[in-house]
This record gives sequence, C-alpha cells and structure tokens, in this order.
Amino acid sequence: MAEQPRALHTAWTLHPDRALPTEPTQRAIAREIYSSIRTLPIISMHGHIDAGAIRRNDAFGDPAELFIIPDHYLVRMLVSQGYRNSDLGVQPRDGASGSLVAETDHRLIWRRFAENWKLYRGTPTRYWMEHELVEVFGITQEPSAASADAIYDQLSATLAEPDFRIRALFDRFNIEILSTTDAPDSDLAEHAALAAEGWGERVVPTFRPDGVFYPDRVTWRAAIRALGARCGRDITSYRGFLEALQERRFAFVAAGARATDHGHLTANTTPLDAADAERIFQQALTGPVDATTGEAFAANMLFESARMSMEDGLVMQLHPGVQRDHSAAIRDGYGPDNGFDIPRPVEFTRALQPLLTAFGLDPRFRLILFTIDETVYSRELAPIAGAYPTVRLGAPWWFLDSPGGMARFRELVTETAGFYNTSGFVDDTRAFASIPARHDLARRVDAGYLAKLVGEHRLTLDEATETAIDLAYNLPLTAYARRGAVAPAATPARTQAESTAL
Amino acid sequence: MAEQPRALHTAWTLHPDRALPTEPTQRAIAREIYSSIRTLPIISMHGHIDAGAIRRNDAFGDPAELFIIPDHYLVRMLVSQGYRNSDLGVQPRDGASGSLVAETDHRLIWRRFAENWKLYRGTPTRYWMEHELVEVFGITQEPSAASADAIYDQLSATLAEPDFRIRALFDRFNIEILSTTDAPDSDLAEHAALAAEGWGERVVPTFRPDGVFYPDRVTWRAAIRALGARCGRDITSYRGFLEALQERRFAFVAAGARATDHGHLTANTTPLDAADAERIFQQALTGPVDATTGEAFAANMLFESARMSMEDGLVMQLHPGVQRDHSAAIRDGYGPDNGFDIPRPVEFTRALQPLLTAFGLDPRFRLILFTIDETVYSRELAPIAGAYPTVRLGAPWWFLDSPGGMARFRELVTETAGFYNTSGFVDDTRAFASIPARHDLARRVDAGYLAKLVGEHRLTLDEATETAIDLAYNLPLTAYARRGAVAPAATPARTQAESTAL
Amino acid sequence: MAEQPRALHTAWTLHPDRALPTEPTQRAIAREIYSSIRTLPIISMHGHIDAGAIRRNDAFGDPAELFIIPDHYLVRMLVSQGYRNSDLGVQPRDGASGSLVAETDHRLIWRRFAENWKLYRGTPTRYWMEHELVEVFGITQEPSAASADAIYDQLSATLAEPDFRIRALFDRFNIEILSTTDAPDSDLAEHAALAAEGWGERVVPTFRPDGVFYPDRVTWRAAIRALGARCGRDITSYRGFLEALQERRFAFVAAGARATDHGHLTANTTPLDAADAERIFQQALTGPVDATTGEAFAANMLFESARMSMEDGLVMQLHPGVQRDHSAAIRDGYGPDNGFDIPRPVEFTRALQPLLTAFGLDPRFRLILFTIDETVYSRELAPIAGAYPTVRLGAPWWFLDSPGGMARFRELVTETAGFYNTSGFVDDTRAFASIPARHDLARRVDAGYLAKLVGEHRLTLDEATETAIDLAYNLPLTAYARRGAVAPAATPARTQAESTAL
Repeated sequence: MAEQPRALHTAWTLHPDRALPTEPTQRAIAREIYSSIRTLPIISMHGHIDAGAIRRNDAFGDPAELFIIPDHYLVRMLVSQGYRNSDLGVQPRDGASGSLVAETDHRLIWRRFAENWKLYRGTPTRYWMEHELVEVFGITQEPSAASADAIYDQLSATLAEPDFRIRALFDRFNIEILSTTDAPDSDLAEHAALAAEGWGERVVPTFRPDGVFYPDRVTWRAAIRALGARCGRDITSYRGFLEALQERRFAFVAAGARATDHGHLTANTTPLDAADAERIFQQALTGPVDATTGEAFAANMLFESARMSMEDGLVMQLHPGVQRDHSAAIRDGYGPDNGFDIPRPVEFTRALQPLLTAFGLDPRFRLILFTIDETVYSRELAPIAGAYPTVRLGAPWWFLDSPGGMARFRELVTETAGFYNTSGFVDDTRAFASIPARHDLARRVDAGYLAKLVGEHRLTLDEATETAIDLAYNLPLTAYARRGAVAPAATPARTQAESTAL
Repeated sequence: MAEQPRALHTAWTLHPDRALPTEPTQRAIAREIYSSIRTLPIISMHGHIDAGAIRRNDAFGDPAELFIIPDHYLVRMLVSQGYRNSDLGVQPRDGASGSLVAETDHRLIWRRFAENWKLYRGTPTRYWMEHELVEVFGITQEPSAASADAIYDQLSATLAEPDFRIRALFDRFNIEILSTTDAPDSDLAEHAALAAEGWGERVVPTFRPDGVFYPDRVTWRAAIRALGARCGRDITSYRGFLEALQERRFAFVAAGARATDHGHLTANTTPLDAADAERIFQQALTGPVDATTGEAFAANMLFESARMSMEDGLVMQLHPGVQRDHSAAIRDGYGPDNGFDIPRPVEFTRALQPLLTAFGLDPRFRLILFTIDETVYSRELAPIAGAYPTVRLGAPWWFLDSPGGMARFRELVTETAGFYNTSGFVDDTRAFASIPARHDLARRVDAGYLAKLVGEHRLTLDEATETAIDLAYNLPLTAYARRGAVAPAATPARTQAESTAL
Repeated sequence: MAEQPRALHTAWTLHPDRALPTEPTQRAIAREIYSSIRTLPIISMHGHIDAGAIRRNDAFGDPAELFIIPDHYLVRMLVSQGYRNSDLGVQPRDGASGSLVAETDHRLIWRRFAENWKLYRGTPTRYWMEHELVEVFGITQEPSAASADAIYDQLSATLAEPDFRIRALFDRFNIEILSTTDAPDSDLAEHAALAAEGWGERVVPTFRPDGVFYPDRVTWRAAIRALGARCGRDITSYRGFLEALQERRFAFVAAGARATDHGHLTANTTPLDAADAERIFQQALTGPVDATTGEAFAANMLFESARMSMEDGLVMQLHPGVQRDHSAAIRDGYGPDNGFDIPRPVEFTRALQPLLTAFGLDPRFRLILFTIDETVYSRELAPIAGAYPTVRLGAPWWFLDSPGGMARFRELVTETAGFYNTSGFVDDTRAFASIPARHDLARRVDAGYLAKLVGEHRLTLDEATETAIDLAYNLPLTAYARRGAVAPAATPARTQAESTAL
C-alpha cells in the first residue's frame, strides 16, 4: 500500500485526548482527572541514565544516536523483521564475525527506522516516539521514507541547540528526582560532583549488585576484584564479601541512594548456611560454579540484601523472571544484554517466603516487586502486597510498560491490593528524552482506569483525582523513602494511611 | 490531602446504576436485565455462618464485632499498611508474644477503619461496605476520621433493634437457602433444632472433611479422635476411617446437606492402593508424616470422596491452590488461618484425570470446581467443564469475588463452556450482613456482561434476561441439587438442557 | 422458561454490526474498517478439509452430517450437558461397549441440537452457526424445539441443490487458497487430480508428520510402515527415516505445499545425538518405548524438521500443549481424538531455545507458533516474535478462536510484537461451511481492536484500514510463503517492511 501523502502535507499533531478512553462519559471524566496530574513533577526512581552525562551536560548527538542505536525496544522490532542489529548501528563486540560491522551512516539508520514506521503501530514505542518528536523536538511530519531526511535534518539542527542539552531538558521535563543505576564498585564521583553543584537531591544513585551475586557468570571474578579494589582490599572470603557490600551500601546511602535493585532469574530468597555460602564463594574464586549453585548463591544474596536493608534503610527492588541472552548468536555477536532477553514463568509465593517470614512484617524493611509475567498479578502479587506491610508493587515493567499492560495491572491488582500498596509509576528507561512521554502515558492510563471507576459510581471524582495525584507523585516518593530516613511521627504513624504508614 | 468536607455534609447515597457499564447503550440494556433479577431470592450454597447463631437468633454485637474483627479481607488491608491484626481486635492465640494484645476499645478499632477508608478504593470490600452501611443499616455519612464516631453510635443503636437480629435480616435479605460449613464430627444439633422450628429447608449443613484428610497436620490425630467419638467408636484403621466418613456423610444427608467441600493445596486426585493408604494411616496414628505423604493421602481422599458421592449423591466442591499460613510469625501470633493465605499456581488437567476418568461421565456424580488462579479459566477449566457432563465451574472465589474478577471469569469461560456449565453465583462469606451486597454485585456484573453480548448483537435481550435469571437463581439450585434427590423424568432427561440434564 | 414465540414468528436475521464494539464512536470506526475487508478473498492455510471431497465435488449430506456429527465443538457442548457422543451420531469404535450405538435418526440428532440452542449462548459456535444458517443456507427461523423440523427440511432441500456442492461454495465463499492437512504417506493423488483440473493453486497439501514422530504411540509402527511403503522401501533405521521424511517433504513441495504442521504435547525442541536417536528408533521398531523417551524423540524431530525446512523452504507450524484423550472412557468408546482433548500449561522460552539458537536468525527459516495457553502471549510469545526474525505468531487457536479470544490475543501481543509479527487470521476447521463465518468474525474482531486504537488517537483511520487489510489478506499470504519460493528483490529486501522482509 502506498505511503499516505497526508503525512507529508498535513501538520503532524498529537490529539490532546490520546490514550484516554473513547467512550464520551469516561473520556470527560478521564480528561478532568488527567488535567490535575498532567504537569506534576516527575519522580523517576529507576532510570538507566548516566550520571556523568548529566554532570557534563552532554548534548545528545545525532538522531540515530539519540533515538535508535541505544533503544533496544526500537532496534528489536526492526530486527524482528529482518535487519541485523549492526544494520541499526549497534556495535558488534570485539572478535565478532567479520561480517558484522556497525552501520556508520546514521542518516541511513534513521531512514531504515522511518521507512518502517508502520511496524510500531499499536506499540508504546510509537506513542513515546510521537510524544518525543512532536512535543519535545517540534517535528511536524510523520516518519516515512519520504519524510526521513527532512526530519533527520530538523532534528540534527535542534539537537545542536543549547536548550536541548540534558540539563535544560531535565528542567523542562520538570524532573524532581532521578535515580541512576550503579554497580557496587562505582566510585560515585559523578554523583559527588553533581552534589557539589547543588544537584545532589535531583540525581541519586541506586545500588545494583547483580554482577557480584551470580558466581557462575564468567564476569563474576572480575566484578569481585573491582569491588575489592573499590574497598581498598582483596576480597577473599564470603564474610569479607558481605562486609564489602555493607560498606558500599553505606557509601551509596551517603551519596543519597534510596534503593537497591536486583535483576534475578527467579525470585528465590532461600538463605544458605554461612558455611555453605563460604564454600561456594571459595569455589567460585578458583574455579567454575554450575548454574544451580550460582542460582542458590544469588538467592542467598537476596536474603542477605534484605537483612542489610534492615540496617541501612535502602528500599529493595526485585525484578525477576527474564532469561538473558536467549540467542547465543546475538550474544556472541554483540555481547551480553543484546541477546534477546525473553521472559519465563515466575513464581513468588514460595520463592519469597523465606525473606518475608524473616523481614516481611518489620517496619525497617521495604520491598518493591516487579514482574514481566502477568499471571502473578492477581494470583500472587496482589495477595502478598495486600497482606505484608513491607511490600509494594512496582509499576508494570519493560514490555508491560504500555497502555494495555498498565491497564491490566490496575485491573488485576487493585481489587485485592488497592491503590496504596502500589508504588505509583516507575519508569525504566535508558532513553532520557522518553521520560516525559512515559510518565505522561502512565498518567493517562491511570486516569482512564480511575474514570471507569467513577463512571461506574464506584468512586467519586474527588476520590479519583486524589488517587491519581498519589499514583503520579506521592506514592513513588513514599514507596522509595529510605526506611528510617523519615523520623517517626509523634502520634502513632499507623493511624495515617500511606503517607506515614510504617 | 484534606478530608473532603462533602462527605460530611451531603447525604451519602448509592447510585442505582453502580457497577453497571458506563457506556449508555450497554448501561440501558444492563439496567433492564438487572431489573429482572434484582429481587430474586438468594441461594447461598457456600457460607461460613454459624448455624447456632441462626438458631439462637443472635444480635450482631457492636460495629467492630460485626464489620471488622471477623472480616479478614478488611483487616488485611489495614495490616498491609502497618497495623497489627491485634490493633484491629484480632485475638492473639494463647501463648503468643506478650506484646500482642487484642485491642479492646471497639470504638477505636472502628475509627482506625474509618480513617483509612481510602485504602479500600477500587476494592470489592468498599462496594460491600457501602451497600451494607447504606442499604442495610441506613447510614448517611461516608466513613472518615470526622464521621467515625457518629457512624459508630448510629450503628450501635441500630444493631440493638430486634429488626436487626439475624433471623429478621435472613427474611429481609430474602435468603431462600443457606448452607453452612461443618466438620465431619459436628453433631448437627443446631441444624436439627432449626429443622424442628421449620427452618430445615432454609439452613443446611455442608460436609467439610479437610481436617481429617491431611495426616501431616498437627491437628490431624485430634480430628480423627473427634470423628471417632462422634461415631461412638475408636478409628484405628483406614478402613474404619472410610466407614466413619460414609456414616457421617449419610448423617449430613439426613440433615439436609447437599454438598461436600474440599480446600486442598493442589487438585491432585490420584488414588492410593488400599494397602498404601492403610500404611500411611497407621503411621500417622503413631508418629509424624511428611508433607509429601500427607498430600498423597489427601489426594487419595479426594478420589474416595468422589466415590462416596456416587453413593450418597452429595455434590463435591473443590477449592485448591492456596498456601495457608504463609507468614509463620502471623500463624504463631494468631493461630492458623490468620497467617496470610497466599495463592499458588494450580493445575487441573493432569490433577483431575484420575477422578474424572473414574467418575467424570457418571450421572450420579457432580463436581464443582473453584480456583483462585485465573490462568486456568480458559486453558483448563472451561475445556473440562465444556466436555465432562459431571463438572460445573463455581463462581470466582475469594480475591476474585470482585467486579473485575467476575467479569474476567465470564469473558474467559463462556466462549468455551457456555453459561450452563457454570454454577451461577456462589458467595463464600463469614460476614452475614454482606450476603445481599455480594449477590447484588454479582447480579450487576453478570447483567453487564450479558448487556455487552446484547449490545454486540450476539444475544437477544430476551435470551440475556433468561440467562441472567438462570445465573442468579436456577443454576445454583440445580448445580447443588443432590444427585439422585431429583427423580428422573419419565421422558429422557437428556433432551432438556440444564434444568433436567443428568 | 418457555420458548420465546418470537423466534418462530419473526424472520431471523443477522445484524450487520454484530460482533463490532457497542460504543457508538468505536462502532462507526469499526464499521468503516470492516467495510474495507469484508469481501477480501479468504486465505485458509490450516484447514482439515478432505481434498478428495473437493476433487469429487461432494454434496454435504443431511443437516446432521454437515453441522453436528463431525463438529467436535458442537458435540462436546451437548455431551457436557448429558448426551453421549453416540446420541449425536458419533460412531463408536469397533469393539466398544455394546450399549454405545450411534444414533441413526439424523432428524432426531438435529432436534437434540435445536432444542438445546440456549447452551451455545455466548460461544463462537453460536456465531458461526447463525452465520452459516442465515447467510449460507437462507434459514429464517432460530433453532428451537418448535422450529427444528422445519429447519431440517429446508436445509435438506437446500443441500440437495447443485449450488450447494463444495466447489460452488468454494467459489461463492471467495476462497483464494485452501491448505489441507496430510500424513507423510499420503499419495497426494487427490491434489494431483485437482491440479490437473486447474485447481492446483487453490488447494494445496500440508505435511503433518506427528504420526511418525511419537514412537511411544501404539500406531507408530504402522505409520512407519506406511511411510516406507509410500517411499517404496522398508524403513529400518533412523537415518533411513530422515531420508524418507525429506523425500516426502519434497513430494509435498512439488504438490504445492507451503508448510508443515506439528501438534506436540510440549514445545520441546532439544536435539538428540544421532546415535541416541538411532537407538530409540531401533528400540521402538521392536518393542515398547516409554512416554518420556517418546517425547524426547518427538522433540528431536521438531529440531530435525526445522533443519529440513532450511533445505526445502516449508514454513513450520507448531501447535503444542494439548493432552489428547483425557478421558480413557471416551477414547475407548470412540477411538483417539474423541477423548476430550484438554489443554495443559505450555512453556516456549526454554523449549524453543535449541531450535531458535540453531535456526532462529536464518532467512531460510520460518516458524509460526500457536498456543491454547493464553498466559504465554505477553510473557513469552510476543517477546520471542518481537525479536527473532523467523518467528510469526499464528492466530488464536481452537477454543481461543472466539471474539474474546481474538481480542485478548491482539491486546496481549500487539504492544510487544506489533501487528507485523503475526500471521493474520488462520482458521483451523473441519467444517467447510463455517469457513466464511470464521474469517468474517476474525475480521470484525480485528476491526474492533483497530477501532479502539483509532478512537484513542493511537492510530489514524488510514493506518488502521491498511493494517486490517494486511491482517485479513496480505499477512497470511506472506507468512505462509515458502522460503526461497519468492525470489529476493534486487534492492535489499530488508529495507521493506513485512511484504518483502526475509
């Protein structure tokens, strides 16, 4: 079918009611709710932005560098239709087959994307890109083969302007706080520099120790060495490993960290005897460890991380259930984390029982759970969060960070856990320019869900509006408040819902 | 955000169209369907009301005793935000930690609930409570910190009136029949007394033998002794155990029972050799049995229960998939069944095969299946019920007894199993005053689902109305009709759908 | 409840907007989209029609023979309410219990169906039957006890007319291409005869080797002998078996086949060492093989089938996850494939990894995945299809080929995989007269889904219309294009979306 000439000749605009319900009664309610939250500050507690880029106030490079090459959502869709990652500019790893060479013509990369715009129909990537191109960068043509070059030129010119450097956008996006994701051996120097400039409250680190938790991975020994180097000593024992972790966690706390983050294969939290853990640790220092043993050690480390959270108050985030590097060919060609990460069924009820039995009722602890397997929403996660006072449910994650995914989350979770056992919206992006689009979409979808409840006379409009504000702003702030960081109220905190609970 | 003054100054009323679809076309159809079923008598085949309370015509105590302390849905939500169960008046078990003392100030308990009314937004508890407070008890203010005391006083006064004792409400609620849930060793004396007063058709027992089916539980030996005592002899063998069960089942039949009920960890129905069963039974009489063996014995007992149903016609209900007492701390503090029961994935296809191969085609048998794991609706339960003539699907259970849960049930089940392989609405409540609210909500949700089919021209309004009446009234009666209790029709019963089938 | 007299006195017609969304805005959009696809030719790539029936241009027999006896969807629903399969004319197998005799009064069989019309409310069978009776056969009364005989007579008269023989309907239905399903030992003589008459492009075979892939089945040795006989030699080794398969696949290709089809218990694709496969093959030739070994061999054969597809270009279809013959009593009474096939949980991520690691990035390969377990849509299938360029997702299968099933498929898959990694609509029917009804329903449901996206301003109407045309027509053609059958374009195919990709 031919390109629609319309796209070239009509100004491309975004409908103010996009992603709100179609039915007029619900739309009117949703529009009113959304109007109360549209401009609230952004709380971005789980980002993957480089603190150094913010410190240096980087420019974003060319359109391919900003929108395509680093965005695995966008690249994958083109790969699923026959492009190679390298055709989209993704760098093969050293030693990969000589036939893989990253495309260096970024205008060509952009054209490949623009010509295949139809592939994104119905996806959140389409929504985010529209928002970014129109709202952030002022593009007035829809991407297509015909418009590709003109858009590329306009974007290139815009990206060179000072108003489109990262700090200007940070202000313009109204980001109140942004968490980065950092390895345990990070020196946090960029955060320190940002703090020295008065940005310490706006950009905070997150402690992500996966790299030292799986002793069966080939990179584990190097990660342990790096952790030891950061602590100024060799790590030669499990006990020393725990001490190093604790030390780094306190360094993160000092740098403003509010949370840890754990991306595990399963949600298993079974602790090991210290002697068993030590034995595995010693074995891993000197030789190979099988995957089962590695998984058992990682489960133990989740338990130990929870114990440490009791001491330092860091909120614990858990993202289980993804099989990394499903395609060995892609992993070998481009390195890990490019290898088609594919979800697997995940189980929480039994997996979390050791951790929740030990810490699940303790006000010093907070656990935020994410899933990419929707079957656990109503079966396991909502009942767990609707009972244990320490648990909050994170926002729909990754592939589920989409209009339908967010709507299903509310439908499947709210009736058992309510709104106030969820974390409110948490984005999970490497694409800085997409942050407002993601929060905007979440606000629209939540407004639509709340409008349905109002339309069915299950909530009043006042209640819905208050709830929408909580979901967009207050709940992420309170869910990620470091335990112990808020002084207990003089009157029993427990008599106040959420804002002061626990 | 401040309390809405509106709630204090405007009379609190319920919208007549609440929980019906918002879209005007569907709403109009749904309203018409609902109007045909709104006042139908209530068939309540799976309750947890105490027969003695009905026999004695108890008053309901104070508002905390009626609404909060015994309602684990309601208590849990407050616990999930930081209260302890004891703060809500739940009694710690003997020997629990001395710091746990049940709150005795019931007005304070009520206040804690009222102040946290917002936590229930979007939950069925909110819907039920509104219905109860407004429709049953005439409250005109929404719960809040400001209104808590006034509501407490008004409720207390109302609850003292004779019109608000249990039998008056039983009549007012238009309950045609109510099943209780009773242990095998129950003497059924309260049911006999009720029958002597002419209430024998209105209140019937249900045989629930879980307590004697799991020999790995610490309470098993006491339960076996109690069963033996009721039968007037010691139970010293598996064969004797089966005889005692059969004897009690016939006693339940004589007392009007229509069904048995089985709450198991899994749906496993694999029978054991009699010799193996005897060996396990003997072992359990004298010493510990591990969980795997206990589960195998319980699976065998499901198979044996089905066999007994072939003899006595009792309809068999199965509720699998819940991990009881997930939190050891809660169980130790408050005893079993307070310990945060959390669902687990459940499987029916393989688990039920032994039972269905043996009895699944036999007109003397009837099995009603419940689940708390929604993934089995379209994958397993609808195909099973859409094939085996003995199987009916129970209503959405527990956490799924909610507007969204009921809507998803119809969406996921109807296309494969139709309406007539479902049981119609079955409530599962310990809260007597919530029975009409629960049935009303189910009727509204089914009306909404049927209205969608009418709106899409997939059913006529006449068909939808007839179906709604069947779901609310006829299907529960026929699904729970004791097999053999209805004399076969002279002409082949099989040529009539549902009302006479099998 | 009494029969509705209305059904007898008013002409029974189908609403032109049936199965479109009720909400007026969405309906208007959906109607416009649907009007662009309503009359597109039918692409039917997964049928179970007998090629001989088409070659002979068979008449369809009487109404029971056409509509009821061969339709397991329809029969099962009556069985689920107390009929025996034999009561509906299903033939018991030789040696089945003497009490099972197929009903021979086909008018009576029709009456049983018509009297129980209400059982089908809300099911796709109802939709299909309405479409067939009204649109194809001109019936003007709704089925009921009162109308049964009159409809039977009218249908019988109509079915005797030459315009209602299979080829006339083939033309009238506007079927462009229809795939049959054929065993490896099929001589394909009917397809050759059809080709000689110029129907070779319209009716093509599909290679379905399940019968020779499970060596644990009692029919396996006979199937191997039949395969050998077709190849003119004994098959006495695994190597010889592979050669025979390859030979037959090329014979299928020569007869116009585009695809293979595999109905397996699981999606396991783990290859075996050739020596292990040979050992199992030899064991199975002479004695029993257990189910685990049989499953391992079948998994290996999926891997080998993919390897063969690389050579001959046949598109590979996989339908896993059904437990065949759940009821031994039904299987013993009527033979296999009547025994209540019930779905089981299925897993793709790990199961497909061997196959996808070996062939998943190769443009010579194409895999179309079907499921009857909806939990894998968003968790596994959409991420896999949204990454691997060889994978397309088939249409909702079997019980899920329904309005709700198809809507959920789009909702759960599109946001991750888009539209262009799906196959478009694929029917799976044995009931020739239902083919247009099934495609029509799919087109309506897709139009409704797209209308929602337009109504929410997430797509333009032009985009939605183009997408609807692709789903109904272009995607099934391209998804089932034999690899290598389409010459590579002169310019890099990869820069064109879908129509030329891979």
